[in-house]
Amino acid sequence: MTLPRQRISLVTLGVADLARARAFYAALGWVEAEATETVVFFQMQGQALGLFGLKDLAQDQGRAGASLGTGAMTLAQNFTSQAEVDAAFAEALAAGATALKPPEPVFWGGYSGYYADPDGHVWEVAHNPFWPLAEDGSLTIPVPA
Amino acid sequence: MTLPRQRISLVTLGVADLARARAFYAALGWVEAEATETVVFFQMQGQALGLFGLKDLAQDQGRAGASLGTGAMTLAQNFTSQAEVDAAFAEALAAGATALKPPEPVFWGGYSGYYADPDGHVWEVAHNPFWPLAEDGSLTIPVPA
Repeated sequence: MTLPRQRISLVTLGVADLARARAFYAALGWVEAEATETVVFFQMQGQALGLFGLKDLAQDQGRAGASLGTGAMTLAQNFTSQAEVDAAFAEALAAGATALKPPEPVFWGGYSGYYADPDGHVWEVAHNPFWPLAEDGSLTIPVPA
Repeated sequence: MTLPRQRISLVTLGVADLARARAFYAALGWVEAEATETVVFFQMQGQALGLFGLKDLAQDQGRAGASLGTGAMTLAQNFTSQAEVDAAFAEALAAGATALKPPEPVFWGGYSGYYADPDGHVWEVAHNPFWPLAEDGSLTIPVPA
């Protein structure tokens, strides 16, 4: 089967404490689709988010014992208004996230904030008036005029 | 608008050298949807992948000067056969990726390999016979029997 080249099937977050990570995403309202003692998966739009122990992940990557970092790869959730961004940011802090940057207007004409989950994985919450979202949440980058 | 909670709009990869990163993803066959001197975006299935300077990303996150790590958040592309996984892995190496783990059968019944892009961002290429892919590449986690 010829699949589209530009896609991500699964985003995996390496976590120091799986129970703590599950509690955080549960507090944020995420519902698990599949879980074992070592890994948890959430269904997203046509892709999955996984939580997996840091040691297990390093071993799976073929470099057992490596100390894996994070932050240089970030995940963004976009919303259709600034108020929705503020609400999502507040929900994340209430769930136990660490604020990195409260939402504020940014130079490119949008509105954006950042928080870190309990393992330091960075999420951006943003409103980008130039990037429309469909009702199913999907994003299509407009073709330049 | 009430958007689905469980979604990622944009995955951003912090890069040390934007030109080098663009060259790598171009060699891998990715086509840019939008580019400025500081940031590049690719359209995926209802979401975007971005390349953005590490310093710019740290500043955007509200922690200018921070040294951001990677590897503990990984991205997977799934395929419908082992042969497709092998081909994708070979293409990545040809484009300049570093092999972390050549594709091999794994204990959970699938087939998986890992490589790192020029900035160390980790991609998995995998075949998971238990997770069907649609023709558009989207993944739906089966409901447990």
